[in-house]
Order: sequence, then C-alpha cells, then structure tokens
Amino acid sequence: MELDFVADLLRRIPADPRLEVPPGDDAAVLRPPAERRTVVTVDMLMEGVDFVLGPDCDPRRVGHKALAVNLSDLAAMAARPEAAVVAVALPRRHGDAIGRGLLDGILALANAHGVTLAGGDTNSWDGPLVISITAIGSAAPGRAWRRDTARPGDLLVVSGACGGSLLGRHLDVTPRCREAVAVAAAFDVHAAIDVSDGLALDLSRMMAASGTGAVLDLAAIPIHPDAVRMAAMAGDATSPLGHALGDGEDFELVLALPADDARRLAVEGPTVAGIPFTVIGEVVAGPGLVARSIDGNLHPLEPRGYVHAFDR
Amino acid sequence: MELDFVADLLRRIPADPRLEVPPGDDAAVLRPPAERRTVVTVDMLMEGVDFVLGPDCDPRRVGHKALAVNLSDLAAMAARPEAAVVAVALPRRHGDAIGRGLLDGILALANAHGVTLAGGDTNSWDGPLVISITAIGSAAPGRAWRRDTARPGDLLVVSGACGGSLLGRHLDVTPRCREAVAVAAAFDVHAAIDVSDGLALDLSRMMAASGTGAVLDLAAIPIHPDAVRMAAMAGDATSPLGHALGDGEDFELVLALPADDARRLAVEGPTVAGIPFTVIGEVVAGPGLVARSIDGNLHPLEPRGYVHAFDR
Repeated sequence: MELDFVADLLRRIPADPRLEVPPGDDAAVLRPPAERRTVVTVDMLMEGVDFVLGPDCDPRRVGHKALAVNLSDLAAMAARPEAAVVAVALPRRHGDAIGRGLLDGILALANAHGVTLAGGDTNSWDGPLVISITAIGSAAPGRAWRRDTARPGDLLVVSGACGGSLLGRHLDVTPRCREAVAVAAAFDVHAAIDVSDGLALDLSRMMAASGTGAVLDLAAIPIHPDAVRMAAMAGDATSPLGHALGDGEDFELVLALPADDARRLAVEGPTVAGIPFTVIGEVVAGPGLVARSIDGNLHPLEPRGYVHAFDR
Repeated sequence: MELDFVADLLRRIPADPRLEVPPGDDAAVLRPPAERRTVVTVDMLMEGVDFVLGPDCDPRRVGHKALAVNLSDLAAMAARPEAAVVAVALPRRHGDAIGRGLLDGILALANAHGVTLAGGDTNSWDGPLVISITAIGSAAPGRAWRRDTARPGDLLVVSGACGGSLLGRHLDVTPRCREAVAVAAAFDVHAAIDVSDGLALDLSRMMAASGTGAVLDLAAIPIHPDAVRMAAMAGDATSPLGHALGDGEDFELVLALPADDARRLAVEGPTVAGIPFTVIGEVVAGPGLVARSIDGNLHPLEPRGYVHAFDR
C-alpha cells in the first residue's frame, strides 16, 4: 500500500524550520534564505546501469549514492545544500523494503549535510529500481562557481585523488560540499566541475565550455590507491594513471584558479578544507587537452570516460 | 551520443532573466522572486504504468503530461510556476527521437505557463521510458494553499467536471495554475487538493489531513461528458457518477471555503478564473466521507481511486 509507505516515510523526516509546509501536501513550501540564489540540479540512477542491487549493493547504498551525486553537483557550484525531493519507481517485489533502505541512506547523508527532505513521489512497477533526486542549494548572488569561466593562465587543481572508484567509492560517494564552500570563501576560483564521468573528460568539458584548452602534467595527477589496486588485478590492461584519468565517479572537484591562488590552495587546502588539493596543469588558449609526459614531451590527450549512447 | 543530444536540448531552451547560470553547468542558478516562498513538487511517470507509447500516445504527449501533473500540484498550492528540471531514462532504441518529442511537449507547456527549464539529466538504458520532473513555484509567505486546513462548516467546491479522463484528458492534462492564482487573490480558500487519483479519494485525503469529514451531495457532482461516454461503452459497468467520483486524473481543484466565499465562487468563478466551480458538499467534524443521495438519504462513501500497490 503506497499510502502507508509514504506516511511512514513522512514520519521519519525530521521537522525543519526551513519548511513552511512540510512534505505530505501537494507540494512543499520552503523559506529560501534571504539574499541568496537558488541552485538546482537533478540526477537519475537506474538499476543495471548505475548500480546492481545485490550483496555488494543494498538499497541503503543506492539511496546514499543518489543523493551524494546531486550534492557533488552542488559542491561543483560551491552551493550550500538546502533541500532535496526524491522520486522513485520501486520494483513491485520487495518494493517496501527497498524503499525503506533507500530512505535510510538518503536520510543519513541528508542529515550530515543539513539537507531537508522536502517531498517525494513513490511509485511501483514491474521494472527495475529507478531513483531521481533533485537537490536545491543556495549561493550568494554572482558567487556560484561556473564551468565556463576558466581563463588562460589559470592553474588547474584537483581535490583528493582519482581512479579505481569501482572498488567501492562509486557507491560510497563523498560529496565535497563543505570543502567547496570553505575553498570558495578563501580562494578566487574562476571555474569548477566535479569528476563524474572521468577526470580528463570532465576537464575537457570545462575547457570546451570556457573556450580554452589545458596542458595536464601527467606526473602530477594524484592517483588513488584504488587505481593502483585495480591496475594490478588480473586482466586489467590499464595503468594506474589511465584509471585516474578515465575511470570517473571520483566526485572530486576540478578547479581553475589564478596561479597564486592555486599554489596557495595546494599548500593550505588541508587546513582550510580538510582535504588535499593538487596542481595538475594549466589553462591555455588553444582548444583540447594536451598531456605533458614525465619526460617533458607534449602529446594530445583524448578524453575518455563514460558517455551514454543512443541508437539513433 | 548524449553530449550532442543534451547540447541540442540546451539550444532549444529560451534565455530567461530568472536564470543567473543557465542549464548546462553542474547545476542551474535561479534568482528567486523577492519576498516569496519556494514551492517544490516532483512526479515521476513510467511507461506501461502512466502511459503506453504508441499511435495514441507519442512522446510529445508524455512530455506534456509529465510537466502538467507537476503544474497541477503547484496549482493545488496556488503557487505561481517558475522553473522545472527534467530527468529521463530513455530506451536505447529510438531514444533520441523520444527525447526530442518529450522536450517538444515540455517546452510548449512550459512556455504557456512561464516556466523556465533549469536543467536536466539525460540517461539511456534497456528499460522502458521513465521521466521525472521537479517543478518549482513561488507563493507569498503563508499564502500557499494547504490540504490540512479545511474547517467544519466550509463548503466544498470543485473546478470543471470529473470522470472519463481515460478518453484523453489523462494525457492532455490542463493544469489549473492561472485559475488557482486568480481564485486565491479573490476568495478565502481554507484548503485545496488536486484530483489526481479520484475525486472521492483525493477529497478523503484532504479531509483526513484536516481531521475532518465531508458530506458530498451526489446530485451536485459535475459529471464530465467523457464520463457519460465511458459509462455508455459496451462492457462498462460504472455509472457516469461512479466515473466522476472514482476515475481520477481529472486534475481539477477541490477547495474548502467558508460558505459565503464558496457560494460566491460558484457564481463568479467563470468571470474571475475562466472556468466553472461547483459546490459539491460540506466539511463536517466527523471523519470519513458521507454521500447524500438524490432522495436525501445519507450513506458512507468508500473512496475509490488509483493506489500503487507493493508486494510486501
């Protein structure tokens, strides 16, 4: 019965002073923070594409990931998370237990990031699990980070380390919301994107949107230990660097900053934001990505990563 | 290729002064209207459950419906529509054409209601079409209509007429946004809900939320001509009144107002809002729905309508 299920969900959502009308009505009514812009993003995850329910991936992890990827988008805008709404298509079989597990994961992450759950739409069907979350954040006017405003001469910086996310981090996503807000307050960030489909691919998107290119220092790319572990697995034909550049689902931040700010961020990042930031290259006028090898040679870098394909 | 597809969508979205950062970035940045609350709702439609793609239902109609049901929720709050974000899981086969058709339907309705498309998430998979839209509206503080604030003695009013929506109106949904805003400005509305799952069922939800009951005058229920047509079809065992009370997907407004306002709305509705409103009953203290037959007899009314069912 959907009615009981929704009522149970509503009981589990804590009261929040930002809600003038809480979930349970035709729509929720939010009190937006004064003098702030509204930042909105949506991501949909589908069973069999973005996750496979099973012993390694219970509904709670799916709920966590579904909200986390949205919060990562807010982080890439340096927005403060405020609210989220959740729509699900639950498989008819075990739909009730799956829905409760999803909410466990969503609520835990929402509480950790000060996100109020403002509503949802619960459906059941004979198909696989689909979950779509819309996250709403806030930012001061003109202060949200964009991806189309990198400038030649900026240095490129990445948070944390990349590669090998399939070993677990692609589910246990850590959105860099607090880190982004802290960096935005202390550094002059020209442009930002989060690493969802692959460091090189997402960087190439930021460069294309900005009308710029980039030279990447391959020796500087921070390689996650998971990338090293994956490269060492039987049958894996990709180097640790290849994993770091192409795997995606790292949900780290790639930032373009003036050289002085970038170098300062690489030093002060752990103090200001609690995580390391590494200078990995430079924004240049020309289009495309160029890699500088360890021996100093330059060669074009073909961005790889995950792209949805249609049959046209 | 998702990238080309998304770029094509973005080109078709008109510029809007409410967007500080337009779609195409990690998130969109909206300038919220000053001194207004943010009203948020989400609805997900699944192929095979909410529609069947085919000769009678092309992707354009699905796109229209997906936005329209959300705008109907905003209408039930008397909120002014502002923005929407769209997430889709497109079937791999013909995904591109389906996506373009969806956007045709969404954009036409969005333009008609002053809704700016603020972003989206386009995915493809081997499953059926799923579309989830989050609509964002605005309302003056404390002025959004709620469903839990009906009072005994209020009269119940419904817009338009109900029943037989399966003959076409369940797809060609007309959200009552302008009508709701016009009524809210001129009448003292205590509570409101839209008819999605059935007039009796949605009314019973409004009454349960308000801690009240209702007496419905069966002779007063406005029966849509489609309900009469359906009842006359071979094999149909439901009366026109039964269709009006139980079919759902009418997306009309059910309002609870003080008696004087309700009677005035029934007279002035067509002038103020452009559509008729009919007094159909009264809010009472007791729980549940009671029907008053044409002969004046009272009997309990079991709310029927569409409810999603799970295998627990």
